[in-house]
Amino acid sequence: MPTGTPDAKKALILFNPSGKRGRFPLGTTVLQAARELGVDIDSMCGGRACCGRCQVEPLEGTFAREGMISSPAHLGDLSETEHSGLSIGILRDGNRFSCQAKIMGDVRIDVPPDSQIHQQVVRKEYEAHPIELDPVIRLYFTRVSEPDLEHPDGDLQRLKQALERDWGLSGLDIDLSLLQTLQSTLRESDWQVTVAVRDETRIVAVWAGLKDQIYGAAVDVGSTTIAVHLCDLSSGEVMASAGAMNPQIRYGEDLMSRVSYTMLNPEGAGQLTTLVRSAINKLLMSVIEQANIDTSHVLELTLVGNPVMHHLLLGLDPTPLGSSPFTLATDQAIEITARTLDFDLAAGARAYILPCIAGHIGADTAAVLLAETPWDLDEISLIIDVGTNAEIILGNHERLLVASSPTGPAFEGAQISNGQRAAPGAIERVRINPETLEPRFKVIGGELWSDDPGFEGELDAQGVTGICGSGIIEAIACMYLAGIIRSDGVINGAMTNRSPRIEASGRTFFYLLHSGKPEIRIDQSDVRAIQLAKAALYAGARLLMDRLGVDKVDRIRLAGAFGSHIDVKYAMVLGMIPDCALEQVSSANNAAGTGARIALLSKSSRREIENRVRNVERVETAIDESFQKLFVDALAIPHATQAFPMLSRVITLPPVSGNHTKRKRRSND
Amino acid sequence: MPTGTPDAKKALILFNPSGKRGRFPLGTTVLQAARELGVDIDSMCGGRACCGRCQVEPLEGTFAREGMISSPAHLGDLSETEHSGLSIGILRDGNRFSCQAKIMGDVRIDVPPDSQIHQQVVRKEYEAHPIELDPVIRLYFTRVSEPDLEHPDGDLQRLKQALERDWGLSGLDIDLSLLQTLQSTLRESDWQVTVAVRDETRIVAVWAGLKDQIYGAAVDVGSTTIAVHLCDLSSGEVMASAGAMNPQIRYGEDLMSRVSYTMLNPEGAGQLTTLVRSAINKLLMSVIEQANIDTSHVLELTLVGNPVMHHLLLGLDPTPLGSSPFTLATDQAIEITARTLDFDLAAGARAYILPCIAGHIGADTAAVLLAETPWDLDEISLIIDVGTNAEIILGNHERLLVASSPTGPAFEGAQISNGQRAAPGAIERVRINPETLEPRFKVIGGELWSDDPGFEGELDAQGVTGICGSGIIEAIACMYLAGIIRSDGVINGAMTNRSPRIEASGRTFFYLLHSGKPEIRIDQSDVRAIQLAKAALYAGARLLMDRLGVDKVDRIRLAGAFGSHIDVKYAMVLGMIPDCALEQVSSANNAAGTGARIALLSKSSRREIENRVRNVERVETAIDESFQKLFVDALAIPHATQAFPMLSRVITLPPVSGNHTKRKRRSND
Repeated sequence: MPTGTPDAKKALILFNPSGKRGRFPLGTTVLQAARELGVDIDSMCGGRACCGRCQVEPLEGTFAREGMISSPAHLGDLSETEHSGLSIGILRDGNRFSCQAKIMGDVRIDVPPDSQIHQQVVRKEYEAHPIELDPVIRLYFTRVSEPDLEHPDGDLQRLKQALERDWGLSGLDIDLSLLQTLQSTLRESDWQVTVAVRDETRIVAVWAGLKDQIYGAAVDVGSTTIAVHLCDLSSGEVMASAGAMNPQIRYGEDLMSRVSYTMLNPEGAGQLTTLVRSAINKLLMSVIEQANIDTSHVLELTLVGNPVMHHLLLGLDPTPLGSSPFTLATDQAIEITARTLDFDLAAGARAYILPCIAGHIGADTAAVLLAETPWDLDEISLIIDVGTNAEIILGNHERLLVASSPTGPAFEGAQISNGQRAAPGAIERVRINPETLEPRFKVIGGELWSDDPGFEGELDAQGVTGICGSGIIEAIACMYLAGIIRSDGVINGAMTNRSPRIEASGRTFFYLLHSGKPEIRIDQSDVRAIQLAKAALYAGARLLMDRLGVDKVDRIRLAGAFGSHIDVKYAMVLGMIPDCALEQVSSANNAAGTGARIALLSKSSRREIENRVRNVERVETAIDESFQKLFVDALAIPHATQAFPMLSRVITLPPVSGNHTKRKRRSND
Repeated sequence: MPTGTPDAKKALILFNPSGKRGRFPLGTTVLQAARELGVDIDSMCGGRACCGRCQVEPLEGTFAREGMISSPAHLGDLSETEHSGLSIGILRDGNRFSCQAKIMGDVRIDVPPDSQIHQQVVRKEYEAHPIELDPVIRLYFTRVSEPDLEHPDGDLQRLKQALERDWGLSGLDIDLSLLQTLQSTLRESDWQVTVAVRDETRIVAVWAGLKDQIYGAAVDVGSTTIAVHLCDLSSGEVMASAGAMNPQIRYGEDLMSRVSYTMLNPEGAGQLTTLVRSAINKLLMSVIEQANIDTSHVLELTLVGNPVMHHLLLGLDPTPLGSSPFTLATDQAIEITARTLDFDLAAGARAYILPCIAGHIGADTAAVLLAETPWDLDEISLIIDVGTNAEIILGNHERLLVASSPTGPAFEGAQISNGQRAAPGAIERVRINPETLEPRFKVIGGELWSDDPGFEGELDAQGVTGICGSGIIEAIACMYLAGIIRSDGVINGAMTNRSPRIEASGRTFFYLLHSGKPEIRIDQSDVRAIQLAKAALYAGARLLMDRLGVDKVDRIRLAGAFGSHIDVKYAMVLGMIPDCALEQVSSANNAAGTGARIALLSKSSRREIENRVRNVERVETAIDESFQKLFVDALAIPHATQAFPMLSRVITLPPVSGNHTKRKRRSND
């Protein structure tokens, strides 16, 4: 596999949405590179440029985080078959056939969904969670008096009189756009209408006759995936869900890449705003179609996302979030019409965006708080939401602290040599026999372990394509437990004697997890990447514990997709999270999405979270003097019963091999 | 002049914006018809289709009030010179050269401003009126603390903290569109900004550095003319004014024609809305340019108009206003962003539209009330705003009544054989010598009377073109005073012996006011039209007096352009208005425009008018049983000292010639 240091005769190619990348000799076709990297590109004709299935879109722009200026010019000229593909309309304008386009320089390639064999599996799904129903919109049926010359009141006034008479509602407001349709609705309905009133202050819809269904949608705007849940506002029931990749991924996998893209490309922020809004709109239309309901009945949205997603969604400049002091445009909740965000909903439909908390701690964290309500407990909760950064919440009914820790994207499979996002073909579970050092693993999309009979047959043609976040964590933890990795993170070269799976690569060593194509190796740089990430996470948690003045936490909740898939034991072996009774460590599942749904269904929950976030103590890891020290201390892989007494109850740890970092951390406990 | 009953070989042609119309033999060119009707169309080449100046736009649509389906097809085919005019771009697409286009059927023709020799004189002008300054928007300069990592508050929050600290403002809201620019404004300004706060609740603009000027505009949307006054909100000073014809006139001169146009043409209401909004927008841009100020500093608008103008401006369906029970969409004041109305102002700029009162009594009447404040007085005021309908307000601090009386457009010169709007060339003042029966008159655009030396030379080439509302009223009053018209309104045929100016036309007679081209005659149908209009006006006033239980009013205020130009004596001779000491009858000038300006400059005046209109008693003339009787009684031209004792003090009235209508009215007094 073509990794390693840059080479004058090689160029970097980066594929979206998989995020796979590699360096290839100039002249390599895009399809060849994709095959070698295990990128999912369809092709039926075997590279003869006649099936049109392998077409891809080269992206133009400056991608600073990747040190790359991508330009279609970095591909060779259009081939003759591409010219004829264009003329007969098989090849879309601006696209290339990946079997024809030759890499002539660094280039970023978007693989459109219809050129992929497998659609990405979007893991964010709806999870049941009891929510007290108290929707912001209620329906009222009323009979409006007919106009007459003796009492020349306007249509709106007579409607308001009827609502006051029948329902005790007064002082209601209305949008002009709705007033523009009120006259005909009243007349068509023979003066009997159902009125949707929002927050007891505003008429947001009027329908002829009796209606008893209104809907809303909770939208979780992740950097990687977007999930939409359509809910019946009367019952709270989820009617339909849909998810999709966040199309902004084309312009940078991680948040800071997108921020830097907007800084370097004048139209960049606008592009990203348009992309995410239109993706959400598509998902909204999709859930409405799934549920087979009338679009005009969808009147309320709640949206959550990290600060960069939040700003890009709202058309706010994310640039100040890209550098210290990481200033938000606003940390208040925002309420606007859905049409302001370009969603094709009724003019009266409104969107509520939960408040952000600080420059790294967004509306998604506010939603996690709302889902977890740590303020209800005496016990100290540690809530961790692992994404590109890890948001960490610590506290109980007395006091709550929150921080963001710069874990980087390694836990998501990025910056790992064979890393990839959680998608079919990715290794997600790993075990290593401490005696034989032989591995067994499970792959997303399959039910069997790699040493089960029929394992290969169960996988699709793509086979094993890489390793995702939970896989790499388990792999490294198991390598450590098997003695392949020392406590300081060095892959022990002496182990080459015990198994051919441990091999040298220059001055360092790697472990061969899978010998297929591509080969899946865990090398020294992978271990280092995970060490840095887990040290940042642990140090963040410790910092908050020190601030709160506690030595241990009573419970740990792991939020997000990562939190639901990780095997907690292995996370603890690596020292990602503080020691805690394992039965007190649990997944909060998609807490951000749940929080969005709570805000959708409960008006009072919005006031609650707005008030709570004002009293949360925001801790900035970047300027805390002790954080750096905690971070260095946390780099080692722990195994001491002193440091993790709970862990030692459930797992056999290797014998202590004294190392300075562990001692340093202990001295801070 | 070609008037009279329809003729199979003649077709009706109607010109906008003058409103002039006539029937012409098929084959007559549009320019010929225009010349005969005195319509202002430029032509330099004398009809050789080479100057391009006479081009006009044929309008398509069904114009029910005129009993006309107008279609460009009702003109002859394009001539060769028109084809070449099109090809070289002199003739705009859809237009015709009026010297070439032949009338082949009923047709409505719009004369674009650049094809007119004279621009219409727009009479609505700004009038000084003391107003208590209390603008809805105030400016605040503040220094915002710089963001820092220790206190990760958002930009908006630090701005709000600064406004609270420096100015005691709290709980402020902001539009998303302004939030989108806040980040860069704060950074560009080195954190020192001027903030415009509306109603102490909403941030509507933020500028870098210190600013001390904000502006607003008062907009009077008349059916005929639109007037805009740009005001400095800090001083109340009018910076610039501009007026224009309401371009909706192309689709119907009077309100009901426009309503019927929207009923018959599916896109009609939308067209009319677009037209009026874009005309207002042009005027706004024009006053901003005149005053040489920054558009972003114009943050507030107030708008007034009658119910149909109000609805069309707001995009509300005017159809229900066209038939009983004349129901408004809303009778509340409306507050929206200026951009909702398609005005090219700052995103934060807002428009306040005064409340309508009833189906015939609009925001313009609310504005008249605000300008006149009859509730401040012990005396009974009668306030009359004459337009297509007359709005009548009666009362004092105890009680206020309001009604609309169906005068029709005769007072505006419509439905009068040589009638026209107040524009250059229109006779506006008339005197008739009771001995010789010879007339003298004055024309708009000239200073001299027609018997002054040099009168002809003073007028432009167009000469005398017609007679406008004030002219026809004075003419008929003088004819009555000279005995040419009897009290029952009949032109006295016996007078043909006394002067050649009185001539027979079939079984009735007319008075020849002016023998030029066109001839200006006052015929029996003109007298009848004015009789109907003045009876409606008088009956409306009497109805309110009866309701209020008063026999006389203490003061009369005449609002609107008509009110400022009419000679009150002659109005009283005709019996248009109740008897009142002449020194207590005065012009309220453009009270609607003044009211709009008051609402612009004074926040409290908005609350006042909103509350006042709720307590105004609305009287519907159409369903009042006594109105019809009052109307019939008021048809005669009065002259009895019993009925008009005040009048007899200032004018010599002809001897009483007993007639039944006068007695009937007297019996009701």
